[in-house]
Amino acid sequence: MAKHFADRMLDAIEAKQAPLCIGLDPMYERLPKQIREIAASNPGGLSEQAAAAREFCQSVIDIVGPQVPCVKLQSAYFERCGPSGVRAYFEVADYAQQQGLVVIGDIKRADIGSTAEAYAVAHLEEVFVGSGKEERAVTFDAVTVNPYFGKDGVQPFIVTAKTGGQGVFVVIRTTNPSATDFQDFKDAEGRRVFERIAERVNDWANQEGCLGDCGYSLVGAVVAATYPEDTKLLRALMPNSLLLVPGVGTQGATIEDATQAFHKDGWGALITVSRSVIYAWERPEYQHLGEVNWEEAIEVAAVETKAALAEALARRAGAA
Amino acid sequence: MAKHFADRMLDAIEAKQAPLCIGLDPMYERLPKQIREIAASNPGGLSEQAAAAREFCQSVIDIVGPQVPCVKLQSAYFERCGPSGVRAYFEVADYAQQQGLVVIGDIKRADIGSTAEAYAVAHLEEVFVGSGKEERAVTFDAVTVNPYFGKDGVQPFIVTAKTGGQGVFVVIRTTNPSATDFQDFKDAEGRRVFERIAERVNDWANQEGCLGDCGYSLVGAVVAATYPEDTKLLRALMPNSLLLVPGVGTQGATIEDATQAFHKDGWGALITVSRSVIYAWERPEYQHLGEVNWEEAIEVAAVETKAALAEALARRAGAA
Repeated sequence: MAKHFADRMLDAIEAKQAPLCIGLDPMYERLPKQIREIAASNPGGLSEQAAAAREFCQSVIDIVGPQVPCVKLQSAYFERCGPSGVRAYFEVADYAQQQGLVVIGDIKRADIGSTAEAYAVAHLEEVFVGSGKEERAVTFDAVTVNPYFGKDGVQPFIVTAKTGGQGVFVVIRTTNPSATDFQDFKDAEGRRVFERIAERVNDWANQEGCLGDCGYSLVGAVVAATYPEDTKLLRALMPNSLLLVPGVGTQGATIEDATQAFHKDGWGALITVSRSVIYAWERPEYQHLGEVNWEEAIEVAAVETKAALAEALARRAGAA
Repeated sequence: MAKHFADRMLDAIEAKQAPLCIGLDPMYERLPKQIREIAASNPGGLSEQAAAAREFCQSVIDIVGPQVPCVKLQSAYFERCGPSGVRAYFEVADYAQQQGLVVIGDIKRADIGSTAEAYAVAHLEEVFVGSGKEERAVTFDAVTVNPYFGKDGVQPFIVTAKTGGQGVFVVIRTTNPSATDFQDFKDAEGRRVFERIAERVNDWANQEGCLGDCGYSLVGAVVAATYPEDTKLLRALMPNSLLLVPGVGTQGATIEDATQAFHKDGWGALITVSRSVIYAWERPEYQHLGEVNWEEAIEVAAVETKAALAEALARRAGAA
């Protein structure tokens, strides 16, 4: 029997002393020149770009792996490189797991039940990478899903994840400016759609067999840090769910904002930062390192983000 | 300048005299024995299953191609076969276009703006299939998207589609039993979330440069046939959008129900049927043909569905 996802996740967080996930969004145009040269024979070629994306992500994993418990792969940037990109997606996941990291597939899929089942198998069951004697099975540790189809569209992921000791993060509140377009519709009692969804996710999280020994569920939620009051509210509405929290850095939220996603004991959330770390050399504060030292910039940014998060959590614990 | 998607779609419907799309959901376990034998060397192998899926879809396209203007590929069933499945997805799309069909990618993706942009490029721009001299570029004619992220999450698809003469179908009302979980939340005025989304989709559909000569927009909507009163309402809320209408057959709606998606003149919608046609030999009425005659069963089911739709639209026109 596979160990429960939440228990594994908490162990990993404890081991690295950081509830921090690094998001891998390999955008070809932003990759360091040295990496882009991998595709030099045919810069517009999708399989060449996929090779560059794989190389970049593996380098980032080498750099941040000792610091953090978890990486998140954004499927879109791999799909962007066509079928070769999808292959690279699984190869990078395999590489990260070999380095002992928990690996989340950021796929945000959703469909009717039978189709959601196919997506769950596609993204939570084994896929093989390499060939011949070097062939290895890789399975993601968790995926993100979109709630719009209701329970039918999410439950197949939960069922599949339960069997495999994996996790599911349901998207509740997103970081983008138009998140409010539909997520904030108010019902007659003034409650917003995303709050109602959170209540249902809490029900799903507490289904039989979904809670780990640590008390957290394999059903988590994606909750943006960009609306701190809502983050606080969502923390309360889903007490047993691990919250995966994007929005810090490039998208404008502060680490301070993001701490609202944690329980008072400093557990229950995983902050995910992507571009502010993996493209750190572009930021004013690291530009002095130069693009040629992109690896150092990534390392410094990861270490500083980790330290800032630890400090913010300590301040919050002190204030409580 | 590429011809507008809606103009192309209407021409294709007129040429085949059928506002009908066949959905390709290749589920390995349900493929005819003769096709499953393609994977006989390693039945559990994902690349073998992908080869079987491709062969099956190409056969279905050969059979239904002369009858209908359009096919829809359900990405989940291709992703289910790993990276080889994603390759098969583009190969099948290429094959369908070579037979003169309009090809919709049923991907239901959504994310924050910059990531939605990557998805739009991934699924609406060129991907190459084949190799060497046989290499060909394939681009989907349209995709489906999920509205949960609001305008940011949809607009990158619209912008990309506009340039390429392609279309975007925003998911509004789904066919699954739990569609009502969140889509039916009512606001203080008693309006449901999906109605509000439809109003916004109507705004997006009428943006500058989005309407074709035929008066329809490149921004369409996915509207389930399973709630006929809602279908009628949504038809009225988005007058210039082509509606892509699933739910007939396996999911329980009748052809009669689906006609609510059309304007009185018999235009403006595209009924999409999948499993009731592509697995027709499993249905009681075609079982006498036997699995060995699966191709005949598919052809008869496609022809009968087309005729039933024509009759239902004629009856509705007569009644109006």
